[in-house]
Amino acid sequence: MAKIIRARNFRWDVPLKEYKTEGTGFRDITRQTLLGEGEGEERLNFLTRYFEVQPGGYSSLEHHEHPHAVLIIRGGGEVILQDRVEPLHLHDCVYISPHTWHQFHATGQEPLGFLCIVDRERDRPRLPDTDDLETMREQPEVARRLRV
Amino acid sequence: MAKIIRARNFRWDVPLKEYKTEGTGFRDITRQTLLGEGEGEERLNFLTRYFEVQPGGYSSLEHHEHPHAVLIIRGGGEVILQDRVEPLHLHDCVYISPHTWHQFHATGQEPLGFLCIVDRERDRPRLPDTDDLETMREQPEVARRLRV
Repeated sequence: MAKIIRARNFRWDVPLKEYKTEGTGFRDITRQTLLGEGEGEERLNFLTRYFEVQPGGYSSLEHHEHPHAVLIIRGGGEVILQDRVEPLHLHDCVYISPHTWHQFHATGQEPLGFLCIVDRERDRPRLPDTDDLETMREQPEVARRLRV
Repeated sequence: MAKIIRARNFRWDVPLKEYKTEGTGFRDITRQTLLGEGEGEERLNFLTRYFEVQPGGYSSLEHHEHPHAVLIIRGGGEVILQDRVEPLHLHDCVYISPHTWHQFHATGQEPLGFLCIVDRERDRPRLPDTDDLETMREQPEVARRLRV
């Protein structure tokens, strides 16, 4: 059945969840899955999620096989993409290719909110070990930005 | 390779295309495919498209097997969903289930812009015949809104 999920100030009529239920390496981030989790007719092959990072917060530094399609719909910030740091502005779109290290940071005064679309069936993220971190920290701008 | 597609006033560094290259039944609507059309590493299983409808314009009245995940990122308007008409406001999310008749209308003073995510592999839309239109027009609010 077709349906509309109403928005109000960057919250939707779906559960507001913790970013992850285990682990560390992230801060002040929430998740809402807008579409795709239903069973039966409402099942989709992809999930449309909204993540919101409060000022000073960040997502996990991770990589995985499945790609991400990201679109910023609130505020701005910065993203680590493997060996570089890129600024993010409203409506910028980010393609995160397979196995690219990435971490989103809300570096401004307002929250950073973004849609992240992924295949419903996908692999689990991998977190960095000390060798990975050492390699990434060879880039000074990455070293300054990354948090674990 | 990970990449950022920069946004500027609801235009991105990808081709701005006609909504459809053939047919009628739509008006003042453009399309940009933000992500998913690449080959090789940049191929995704789903496409993230941005459609923009100018005031007074509308998309095709159509249905198909593949579902749509829609999120409004500019302005507002109305959408026909089978036998009803629903208002659309900024950031509302619409799930269009398989074979639901739908048509987007920019009824306000500013353009209606929305993301529409679909499976890359999908069936073609079907347009209404006279019997379909007669059935839909049994609902007065749908009859007032629909355009073909």
